[in-house]
Amino acid sequence: MSDYKVIFHIDEMSKWQVLLGNVSNLLNGIADTKLHVIVLANSEAVKSYETNQGFDAVIHTMESLNKEGVKFVACNNALMAYKMVKDDLIHFEDIVPAGIVELVKKQSEGYIYIKP
Amino acid sequence: MSDYKVIFHIDEMSKWQVLLGNVSNLLNGIADTKLHVIVLANSEAVKSYETNQGFDAVIHTMESLNKEGVKFVACNNALMAYKMVKDDLIHFEDIVPAGIVELVKKQSEGYIYIKP
Amino acid sequence: MSDYKVIFHIDEMSKWQVLLGNVSNLLNGIADTKLHVIVLANSEAVKSYETNQGFDAVIHTMESLNKEGVKFVACNNALMAYKMVKDDLIHFEDIVPAGIVELVKKQSEGYIYIKP
Repeated sequence: MSDYKVIFHIDEMSKWQVLLGNVSNLLNGIADTKLHVIVLANSEAVKSYETNQGFDAVIHTMESLNKEGVKFVACNNALMAYKMVKDDLIHFEDIVPAGIVELVKKQSEGYIYIKP
Repeated sequence: MSDYKVIFHIDEMSKWQVLLGNVSNLLNGIADTKLHVIVLANSEAVKSYETNQGFDAVIHTMESLNKEGVKFVACNNALMAYKMVKDDLIHFEDIVPAGIVELVKKQSEGYIYIKP
Repeated sequence: MSDYKVIFHIDEMSKWQVLLGNVSNLLNGIADTKLHVIVLANSEAVKSYETNQGFDAVIHTMESLNKEGVKFVACNNALMAYKMVKDDLIHFEDIVPAGIVELVKKQSEGYIYIKP
């Protein structure tokens, strides 16, 4: 079986729990396959990447998934809009200049799009 | 004209009316083409598959669409989370172990993704 | 680098600001590439296409983006549902019989799907 490449898109704070459950179920469900998973957060959803803001439970789950290979990516346009700086963010996230550009480029590279 | 394969994703109860309207408009709009339509419900959206819970109008529309060939699929992870058992569900739905895996696999088989 | 074709789907009024920000960031982020962008509104989201209804700020942004080549498309099923007539709409939008059919056809032509 070939690799699966999946990009999850989140732009609402209220969707993090559902999204992380989806990612976890995906890892459990396609265990034997080489799986490439990216979580791309833009708009208000980037706020969960900030430490010391009460998102410990969400961040703990992100960290576990990251250890299993899931990449967490933040849109820099959104970070700037919410005046968030890299030092205040979780240490394992990647930053891209524009989340929307990343969503387009990854899909054009064959990533499957899921929007919980 | 070739076949169209479409998978609709729903994870919010509030979206059923819009989604079923979309499916209906799709069937009316591509009448002469061979069309394969799947509705995949995960997270809280599976609750509408339960009979005797006040969702008669939604279920009635689902049943009509099912008779036209639309497949309704439930995520078993979600069914378990909401303690729903097969005997309480509509008779024409299919159950998959993980809805998210189905969304990924169907897209990798060429299904077009729509998230109302 | 090849062309990018992107179709944005909106069916909620509350999502217009985020969506137009996404489109703007996309145009800024892939400036040197030939980019084809469609915004497809169905369900309640078509209401923002009506003039004299208090959506001047949103329409102003749409118009700027349209001058940069972004196409704004309305689902006629939705226009009829909200009893909206062409004379009351912004002058630069296109109307398709069924938005959902357009979403399926454009994706089958290689358009990348984004749902803010």
